[in-house]
Amino acid sequence: MQTNPHDDDKLHEECGVFAVYGHEDAAALTALGLHALQHRGQEASGIVTTDGNQFNVHRSLGLVDRAFSDPAVMARLTGHYAIGHNRYATTGASLVRNIQPLYADLSFGGFGLAHNGNLTNAQLLKKDLVKNGALFQSTTDTEVIIHLMAVSRVDGVAERMVDALRRVQGAYSIVACHSGGIIGVRDPLGLRPLVLGKLGASHILASETVAFDIIGAEFVRDILPGEMVIIDGEGVHSRMPFGPAQPKRFCIFEYVYFARPDSVVEGRSVYASRKRIGAELAREAPCDADVVVPVPDSGVPAALGYAEASGIPFEFGIIRNHYVGRTFIEPTDQIRHLGVKMKHNANKAYIEGKRVVLLDDSIVRGTTSRKIVDMIRAAGATEVHMRISSPPVSHCCFYGIATPSTEELLAHKMTVPEIEKFIGVDSLAYISTEGLYKAMDEERNSPGRSFCDACFTGEYAIPLTDYRNQSEQLTPTDLERLQAGQK
Amino acid sequence: MQTNPHDDDKLHEECGVFAVYGHEDAAALTALGLHALQHRGQEASGIVTTDGNQFNVHRSLGLVDRAFSDPAVMARLTGHYAIGHNRYATTGASLVRNIQPLYADLSFGGFGLAHNGNLTNAQLLKKDLVKNGALFQSTTDTEVIIHLMAVSRVDGVAERMVDALRRVQGAYSIVACHSGGIIGVRDPLGLRPLVLGKLGASHILASETVAFDIIGAEFVRDILPGEMVIIDGEGVHSRMPFGPAQPKRFCIFEYVYFARPDSVVEGRSVYASRKRIGAELAREAPCDADVVVPVPDSGVPAALGYAEASGIPFEFGIIRNHYVGRTFIEPTDQIRHLGVKMKHNANKAYIEGKRVVLLDDSIVRGTTSRKIVDMIRAAGATEVHMRISSPPVSHCCFYGIATPSTEELLAHKMTVPEIEKFIGVDSLAYISTEGLYKAMDEERNSPGRSFCDACFTGEYAIPLTDYRNQSEQLTPTDLERLQAGQK
Amino acid sequence: MQTNPHDDDKLHEECGVFAVYGHEDAAALTALGLHALQHRGQEASGIVTTDGNQFNVHRSLGLVDRAFSDPAVMARLTGHYAIGHNRYATTGASLVRNIQPLYADLSFGGFGLAHNGNLTNAQLLKKDLVKNGALFQSTTDTEVIIHLMAVSRVDGVAERMVDALRRVQGAYSIVACHSGGIIGVRDPLGLRPLVLGKLGASHILASETVAFDIIGAEFVRDILPGEMVIIDGEGVHSRMPFGPAQPKRFCIFEYVYFARPDSVVEGRSVYASRKRIGAELAREAPCDADVVVPVPDSGVPAALGYAEASGIPFEFGIIRNHYVGRTFIEPTDQIRHLGVKMKHNANKAYIEGKRVVLLDDSIVRGTTSRKIVDMIRAAGATEVHMRISSPPVSHCCFYGIATPSTEELLAHKMTVPEIEKFIGVDSLAYISTEGLYKAMDEERNSPGRSFCDACFTGEYAIPLTDYRNQSEQLTPTDLERLQAGQK
Amino acid sequence: MQTNPHDDDKLHEECGVFAVYGHEDAAALTALGLHALQHRGQEASGIVTTDGNQFNVHRSLGLVDRAFSDPAVMARLTGHYAIGHNRYATTGASLVRNIQPLYADLSFGGFGLAHNGNLTNAQLLKKDLVKNGALFQSTTDTEVIIHLMAVSRVDGVAERMVDALRRVQGAYSIVACHSGGIIGVRDPLGLRPLVLGKLGASHILASETVAFDIIGAEFVRDILPGEMVIIDGEGVHSRMPFGPAQPKRFCIFEYVYFARPDSVVEGRSVYASRKRIGAELAREAPCDADVVVPVPDSGVPAALGYAEASGIPFEFGIIRNHYVGRTFIEPTDQIRHLGVKMKHNANKAYIEGKRVVLLDDSIVRGTTSRKIVDMIRAAGATEVHMRISSPPVSHCCFYGIATPSTEELLAHKMTVPEIEKFIGVDSLAYISTEGLYKAMDEERNSPGRSFCDACFTGEYAIPLTDYRNQSEQLTPTDLERLQAGQK
Repeated sequence: MQTNPHDDDKLHEECGVFAVYGHEDAAALTALGLHALQHRGQEASGIVTTDGNQFNVHRSLGLVDRAFSDPAVMARLTGHYAIGHNRYATTGASLVRNIQPLYADLSFGGFGLAHNGNLTNAQLLKKDLVKNGALFQSTTDTEVIIHLMAVSRVDGVAERMVDALRRVQGAYSIVACHSGGIIGVRDPLGLRPLVLGKLGASHILASETVAFDIIGAEFVRDILPGEMVIIDGEGVHSRMPFGPAQPKRFCIFEYVYFARPDSVVEGRSVYASRKRIGAELAREAPCDADVVVPVPDSGVPAALGYAEASGIPFEFGIIRNHYVGRTFIEPTDQIRHLGVKMKHNANKAYIEGKRVVLLDDSIVRGTTSRKIVDMIRAAGATEVHMRISSPPVSHCCFYGIATPSTEELLAHKMTVPEIEKFIGVDSLAYISTEGLYKAMDEERNSPGRSFCDACFTGEYAIPLTDYRNQSEQLTPTDLERLQAGQK
Repeated sequence: MQTNPHDDDKLHEECGVFAVYGHEDAAALTALGLHALQHRGQEASGIVTTDGNQFNVHRSLGLVDRAFSDPAVMARLTGHYAIGHNRYATTGASLVRNIQPLYADLSFGGFGLAHNGNLTNAQLLKKDLVKNGALFQSTTDTEVIIHLMAVSRVDGVAERMVDALRRVQGAYSIVACHSGGIIGVRDPLGLRPLVLGKLGASHILASETVAFDIIGAEFVRDILPGEMVIIDGEGVHSRMPFGPAQPKRFCIFEYVYFARPDSVVEGRSVYASRKRIGAELAREAPCDADVVVPVPDSGVPAALGYAEASGIPFEFGIIRNHYVGRTFIEPTDQIRHLGVKMKHNANKAYIEGKRVVLLDDSIVRGTTSRKIVDMIRAAGATEVHMRISSPPVSHCCFYGIATPSTEELLAHKMTVPEIEKFIGVDSLAYISTEGLYKAMDEERNSPGRSFCDACFTGEYAIPLTDYRNQSEQLTPTDLERLQAGQK
Repeated sequence: MQTNPHDDDKLHEECGVFAVYGHEDAAALTALGLHALQHRGQEASGIVTTDGNQFNVHRSLGLVDRAFSDPAVMARLTGHYAIGHNRYATTGASLVRNIQPLYADLSFGGFGLAHNGNLTNAQLLKKDLVKNGALFQSTTDTEVIIHLMAVSRVDGVAERMVDALRRVQGAYSIVACHSGGIIGVRDPLGLRPLVLGKLGASHILASETVAFDIIGAEFVRDILPGEMVIIDGEGVHSRMPFGPAQPKRFCIFEYVYFARPDSVVEGRSVYASRKRIGAELAREAPCDADVVVPVPDSGVPAALGYAEASGIPFEFGIIRNHYVGRTFIEPTDQIRHLGVKMKHNANKAYIEGKRVVLLDDSIVRGTTSRKIVDMIRAAGATEVHMRISSPPVSHCCFYGIATPSTEELLAHKMTVPEIEKFIGVDSLAYISTEGLYKAMDEERNSPGRSFCDACFTGEYAIPLTDYRNQSEQLTPTDLERLQAGQK
Repeated sequence: MQTNPHDDDKLHEECGVFAVYGHEDAAALTALGLHALQHRGQEASGIVTTDGNQFNVHRSLGLVDRAFSDPAVMARLTGHYAIGHNRYATTGASLVRNIQPLYADLSFGGFGLAHNGNLTNAQLLKKDLVKNGALFQSTTDTEVIIHLMAVSRVDGVAERMVDALRRVQGAYSIVACHSGGIIGVRDPLGLRPLVLGKLGASHILASETVAFDIIGAEFVRDILPGEMVIIDGEGVHSRMPFGPAQPKRFCIFEYVYFARPDSVVEGRSVYASRKRIGAELAREAPCDADVVVPVPDSGVPAALGYAEASGIPFEFGIIRNHYVGRTFIEPTDQIRHLGVKMKHNANKAYIEGKRVVLLDDSIVRGTTSRKIVDMIRAAGATEVHMRISSPPVSHCCFYGIATPSTEELLAHKMTVPEIEKFIGVDSLAYISTEGLYKAMDEERNSPGRSFCDACFTGEYAIPLTDYRNQSEQLTPTDLERLQAGQK
């Protein structure tokens, strides 16, 4: 239904969150912030606004600019504070009730919650809650948090939230609203990002700084791993409810692909990081070639870095159609045979007769890479060398990134030489995990390293309780599909 | 949004229910049954189907023929049994989650429930449930039943349902589905109708027999007040879980206006009952006139009865526009001044120069009656005598009929002579409560009388727990609006 | 797409027209007038408004109350005069450009035209026009009139219109608007109706008087056969451009079925006429029976007349579902086998054990009649006698009524005894053509008779130029389909 | 309604055309081709297909991937040849009938025509045609061609087309279909592009080569200025009906901005041409700066050229939001004050503390340039130097490009120093007209120069008949608006 510039052959961030306190246009700011975070979830979005008394909810499938373009919808979203959420839904239109923010009337009043991340013991907790009479509205892991809060015997909204979060495992960057204000919290390992900003006297929380830029807000600081911030009329109060800060395990893939290049994440420019990774890759895997061509758009900064470090000229040898997205024609066999190029087109003048270094950020299933290599060869390249600015993705993510099942990951079932052959290139090289850390100014083997790299290494920093119990290994997506199948 | 042939100056039935067990086209039969019950709720409808394992839900605003016309929707509604519900929503589009059947995953599996009626202690029960950590998905009284079932410690679905229903007060005709089959149950006073039918080897439950007629099913019997029927692969099992049958208190207004004329309700033809009421009214309140004119369509059978009993000729002196419904033009002052007749038109040839007896079933706010009398006078009637085939509606219903607040009921604030003047007729007469019972072959003052007549008399058969506790007197509609306001 | 209460087993009026001059709410009055004329065309409608300078057009598929409910649409339709049209489209959604009023910029300025009727030499004229370089926008016969006006060398809009109409054959009641005002015209035989009314200082033209009633306008007079009225700021000017009035040939079927019962057509109440036809039918074809049951709604007045004349009681033995229309479920074989009753339901209490006289206005293909008879028998009738208040429809109409091809007309291919058997009744009687005239106070064989009865008798009053030239006999519907097929 | 990545502060190409002969998936290929040409017209598109007998038309507002995604629509578009058109509509939704291809039934059969360009004597010709009885369906200049063909007395479709085109002035690249095949034709000066390709045995015409790339077709050659190609079952026949080829006057702005960078236009790579223009600009207007930043996406190739020639590093200092388009929030004063950045965001890490050369292809009204400069300054640039890869746009285009009225063109009312001040840069330089030609390997003052540069110089190669007659100077857009106002 929607033009989705994201590639089906990429991993997908599952969510973006936004919250603002103390602005009369809270709903509009939230919609704009979600729009800037659209790359973190394109299938659905929602906003909860409130003045502390009345809570207003609007949730809708589709892109933010459609979901919140109806003036009648916006007029209903009154109140001086708001939270919002973008979702990458895995199971389709039928599950409108899974769109976040979730909302419930609890004994202490209205409560809205939006979550970026994924819990790894939600099923276990849910089973127990249902046994005790809980009615689940959605099939999301997130709802477990609200139920735990509903049955908590502790006083105070923030205290109940802490009580609930102490029982969950997993990755979470959460924004919530209640009658007293908004709350932001990040899991103790800080797997997913969450930043604090301000706009005049208003306070803002968001997944990335680009959500501040769009509305002219100022970046203040990153929320710390394990930190809870409570925002109300008196300002921003910080707590460390899970004990003193532990070593961070921030998702390194945010730098490789997920975050927007113009975001500053945990103190680093994403664009600059990508260029550094590209430069490191040029050192690790040099290549005798005529031109460095990025697979647009995500491969561009790494390609610039590779070109600068290697001295090989950078050119847009592949042009991306601005209007592209889904394949809108039902293909006949004939049409299928043509290999319709909906998204990318070779810029022949810069390919023909050239030895091409193709730069991409990652390979997931490999289907798109194959087609692009074919296209480059058809345009007359004499050699095609693929360079990838991440290590091979060989393990599923359980912390908030939608990955296909392990069996579908090309790097799980093939060696690099096999992949080289599969996608049909003259040479293929991935950056090494060590090289990736080096580009980020860290050492992989240092105990103080601050990144999660489980998708490359299989070293999971948080127990996978729900998944280890299954007879077959399931991804979070599989689990959700399973749940939804009951409806 | 929808053409709604119902008059805004009428009371509205709040719901219709339907269930079928043991048919491969269960969803289609349910949609057709709901279509035949459309007069019991036009704003929204829903169906839950199952094969005992997978449960499928579709709920939608609008008329049944739109909600279930998409083949893709119907294709998803697989399973050999199903329940369905039509709703007369009082609080608008924002409350899609209030559309029934409600559905939840309970500890014993999937569970769907559809309810015609209204509970009178739901708020009290809900407060307690929320205090204990329950999360409510909807603002309906009905959801209380599911939460009570979820926290019940009894074994077995039917047993849990009985356990829950023993705690509620109010009127209910319920159909439910679970992994083992379908369940139908009627409150101990039998306020709302529920009938049992069969179609070949399939068993069917419905609010009215017209839902059997549309699909060629056979009427078997009325479900008894206080009876629960459990339908599964082995047939229909009956239980009386609330003790032996008590004297019935069936809603007499079903005969006056709510039920379809071609339904047979509690053993009586609705159309024939209306004719008898009209005939009794002719005896109670005769009139020297030239023509008996019904306010179409609901006044027609009583007018036929009045005409036959009085010997005055019956004519369609008012023609109803088939295409009518909402006022689609935003009226300017000029247009408003014209008194646009969207719905009814005087059939002048039968009005001009005549003394007219106008027959209608009820007067609620009186606004429509006034306009119709004006129109009849403008068409040249020399006298207009209004006869109403129900006693004055002076009290709210708390048992499943949407009534305006007491203050808006014309008969609450005016005497009959005042109403006569207000609507501008030469004479006005309502049938007496005694006369109404007489037409139904009962005596009002007999202890064995089997009808609820609270809307005429204020004699409420079931305690109004939630409403008596309020500082001001609220109708069920007010309460729902109040709840929904929180969202 | 739309609920269409009209029966597929009836003939269909092809159009309704409306025009108003001199009212600031011209567009709204036209929309309301078209709504009252909705029975004359349900598939599409349009309005052209103007202040004499700017012309505004809105045309849309679907019912009037949808087509003109958007305030933005109405806001664009400015101007103090307007014309409107309802269309019964025969060839579907693709032909939006066939929706009337047609509009064109002619050398003398903007011109809009709406036509009820059908031309019988349009194809011949069109062929010639195209040969001379005319570009046709639509596939309608009506557009020929505008092209003839465009190439006319006469001065003055009305004069050009007369010049064009002198070249066409067929039935037409036309309303048109140009920079100087509105024009209404009726063909010399007056086949289709057109009435003049007023609302304060505004003048109105419409197909039927019900379009006056809805807005509180007054009926002034029928437009005469062959009369042209020119309405502008100075009032209503009448001309007889086709010579002195000839004997009228008004469509008698307007009284039998097409017109609304509350209309007064050519000086007669439609409802009263139908009762008289029913009474005459009772005299021609009496019946020993217990109850007279109309096929609702069109059979009701004739049934009342039959019941009064015969003394047999009248009852609504068939109840029509208000919400009915299209079959919204795609039927499986099982469902088909059930004989789903979407539209009519037997009111069993009045059928069971009874000898039933079933009253209907006409039989076209006979498919619906058959199903109704089946339903009445299944409800327990001991005898079923069908009485039809029109003679057998055995010939196509070429003057503005959509009839199936001759081969599909039951009365074309079967004798009355065969039809009796086909629809499964104990007896069947149609009113005779003579009886029908008698009920209308005329004599069929008098030279002064004022009706067209070609659909019963095959005596066509106007030459069928386009149709006689075809190798096979085509209906107007066939011709239009043929034309549209080229697109 | 649609996401339109084009900037409101750019000129807009008015149309793209496509045609294919001899392929069973003609409609699908055309839809894909139009999708690749989407940048040439985003507001509406249409396709006419035929097998020589039946013609099928579908036209729709909105982007191609929506207009042709309905399988039912595609299924209707049968036939082995087709023509298609993308339109940049200037006057909005009401003018659906202006969407091309236009279609008409002429005396020789069905005829469809799609036009890229603009005629400069269409109004004059239209006045005459209307006086002779022509009915215009649309308000487009294009329809004049069809009317001239309809009244032409010459035999043969191609001959009639030549007869008609000899009477028109202006720019046109046309594709047409009739019962015998397809026809392509380009005006004698070749103002707009038209290329010939093939796919197996099928022949294809398109505005740009990217329409070949998407379906894997091969580029054959450019159609010559003044050439007509007639394509049928026997192949491609070429004619020069307007006499021998004249010196070409191809639109130079196609290289600057309109054409897609991956297209090869008149033998030159658009991307390479833009780089050369950037390099020439670096020589003409050097700058002491730290970083070259393109205004994405259109400024990118020229920025790469500028960076290479100047040795200043190229960086993506502005990031464009993929999901951007319209402003979906109705801005309050507060929101307006924030300067919401829907489309572009500064990549701060590369701007802060830097002297920035900003590269853009053109300035039209200057409003966007101003905002971008503000944003770059707010991100911390110490100096901002704007370089524009086209000469100042100071004159309207009358040959198929939508330009604002002359009064709105910044370069019409301000000198370069004034513009420099208006947009707030430290320095501003446009490439000179001479430099632009030099980058294209031509000399501006050579008589053999092959480009139209009227928008920079006011030297119009074709008479502006319709426009010179007006009391005030109108653009083609004004004229169309004026025409449409009459409806």
